[in-house]
Parts: sequence; structure tokens; C-alpha cells
Amino acid sequence: MKELEDRIIKDGTVKSGGVLKVDSFLNHQMDVALFQDMAKQWHEDFADAHINKVLTIEASGIGIAAAVAAEFGVPAVFAKKSQSINLDGSVYTTPIKSFTHGRTYDVIVSKRYLGPDDHVLIIDDFLANGAAMRGLLKICAEAGATVEGIGIAVEKGFQPGGRDLRADGYTVDSLAIVESMDPETGEITFRH
Amino acid sequence: MKELEDRIIKDGTVKSGGVLKVDSFLNHQMDVALFQDMAKQWHEDFADAHINKVLTIEASGIGIAAAVAAEFGVPAVFAKKSQSINLDGSVYTTPIKSFTHGRTYDVIVSKRYLGPDDHVLIIDDFLANGAAMRGLLKICAEAGATVEGIGIAVEKGFQPGGRDLRADGYTVDSLAIVESMDPETGEITFRH
Repeated sequence: MKELEDRIIKDGTVKSGGVLKVDSFLNHQMDVALFQDMAKQWHEDFADAHINKVLTIEASGIGIAAAVAAEFGVPAVFAKKSQSINLDGSVYTTPIKSFTHGRTYDVIVSKRYLGPDDHVLIIDDFLANGAAMRGLLKICAEAGATVEGIGIAVEKGFQPGGRDLRADGYTVDSLAIVESMDPETGEITFRH
Repeated sequence: MKELEDRIIKDGTVKSGGVLKVDSFLNHQMDVALFQDMAKQWHEDFADAHINKVLTIEASGIGIAAAVAAEFGVPAVFAKKSQSINLDGSVYTTPIKSFTHGRTYDVIVSKRYLGPDDHVLIIDDFLANGAAMRGLLKICAEAGATVEGIGIAVEKGFQPGGRDLRADGYTVDSLAIVESMDPETGEITFRH
């Protein structure tokens, strides 16, 4: 998606260690007009899928998922990252290892909001190793929900998450795939 | 706001310990059509304020804030709850005690996304003791930003957060104020 790629070029910053900072518009400050355009693109791409639920994981995916849910006219569910006393015992849960934070946490979705009737579009801001996505897929499998596709804002194409998910048969629709990036020059190239 | 009150009556559940579960439409599964109506109400209520930024705190506030930002045509910023390696050192930070989770965590906003030119509408899903809100207000004060108002989905009127904030001169616009609720009968009454 050219609009997102252009925005990454304009406002993204490449840091060492394979870190791409896009927090001025994607995952700290949110440009919701951009989110709405991204949602329209996914809506077009998944026009033939009968999606009736959007699933994401807190926190950075939520704003994007809300825009997508509005565009599709369906509810969104965000998986929570730790047991909260406001959740019943009746939950799906799976551990996820976070590379960003260097620890393992539990991801939780209430059984009331995901089930066999759900045709799910999973949304997240980033896809790198795919650890969080594997957790969400495991929860969808437990729920008996059908995963119609995976919508990612920025995929790090030089990490294996997207490749492995496509090899497993999932439709991964990444609006920008970073092929390479150089922390010295700041140069970013995209895969098309 | 009648639509929100009706929805709380229909789908909310009163638990012991002053807990109101609204996770079927507000803070786990999200009814974004409802969020858009809430955003319209705040837009009407704050028509005379020159709001150019929405501020919230992860995670439950983000979906609502995204809808509000879309309605106002401004960016939204969500405060993060723990130091992330994807954030620069250049941040505002303050500790907040969570009554829900029984621990203290740091709340962080990058200095690049909040400053003296910002006229802020703070959005959150719940207001009870006001601890999280006090943290966001402290960050706004540090940034030199002007707080035009506070938009809350559900205020627990039997806890002191809203009363204290109004006594301090803040415009607190809660779309539903729960006056009392009974875990035995499930009855919920609203303040008008």
C-alpha cells in the first residue's frame, strides 16, 4: 500500500537491532485517517471472505483493529496480555514470548467472544517472528473459529514470521513489507 | 447518554466488590458503532473547545480514543504502561497505582507527541478512583499541554474520582454515571 510505504519513508526511523520506529503515526501516536485507509484496503482485499469478527492483541493493534471493525461493520476483540480480575475464569489462554520485552506473558480471550461461528480477520501492527500471531492462531483453533486472513500493517520481510505463516497456508495481507533497512543511512526498501 | 446506559443495562453484569463487567461491548469485545456514537456525543459536547489531540492510556481506552480521534479529525496518543525498547529516552513518565491489578506501573508518553501547542481531550473507558487520570493530567502538565476536558464512558459515581476532578475545575464528561449497583439483584441506577 503506497500510502503506508510513503509514510514509513517519511516518518519512520531505522534503529540498530532491526528496530523500525513508526510511533509518530502507528503505535504510540495514531493517525486514524491512515488507519481508515488501511481498513479500506483490507476490506477490498478480503471482499470475498465472510468476516464477522476482527481479532487483535493489546495494545498497539487495538486502534487499527477498531478502524477495521468500523469498515467491515463487525465487532473487534482484543486479546489481553495478563490475567485481569475483570475477566471470568472462562477464557482461552496461551503463553507468548515477547522479543520486544524479553519475557513470556499469557494472552487471554474470553470464550464468550470467540467461537465456531466466527470468521476472523486477525489484525496487528507488526509481524516479525510471528510469536504473537501464533498465539492468536492457537486461540482461534481452540475456539473452533475460522481464520479468514491476517492483516498486518508492517511486516519485517527479513524475519521469518510472514514466510512461515504463508507456508502454513494462511493468507497474510501485509500492507508494507520491509525487505531491508539500514540503520546507518536510514534507507528502507520494500518488497512488492 | 441513553444509548450507552441502555447498553449497560442490557449487557453489563454487576459483580461483587464494585465491579461492573462491560467486556461484551466496551473493553474486551468492542462495539465500534457504539464508540462512533459516543464520539459524536463528545464532539457535540466539546464543540467550542479547540481540541487538536486525543490522549488515552493503554489498553482499554485505545479503541474508544481511535473513534474519537476520527470524529474530531485529530491524532490520538496512547500512554504506554511500561518502558519499551521501542521508545526513546525522551519521555514524560509518572507512576500510577492500579486498583484493578493491585500494583504500581509507570505510564509513559513520548515528548514528541505532547507539548505546549496541544489542546487535549483525555479519553478513558472507566473512571473510578481517578488514579490513571491523575497520571495523565500530570503528564499533560509536564508537557505544558492544555486539558480541554475529560471524556469518560462509564464513571463509577459512588467512587470519588469524578467528584474530585470536578472540584479541581476539570470538565468531566461521563456518558454514563453509575450511581449505585447491586450485585445481588443486578440492578444498576444512573445519575442524571
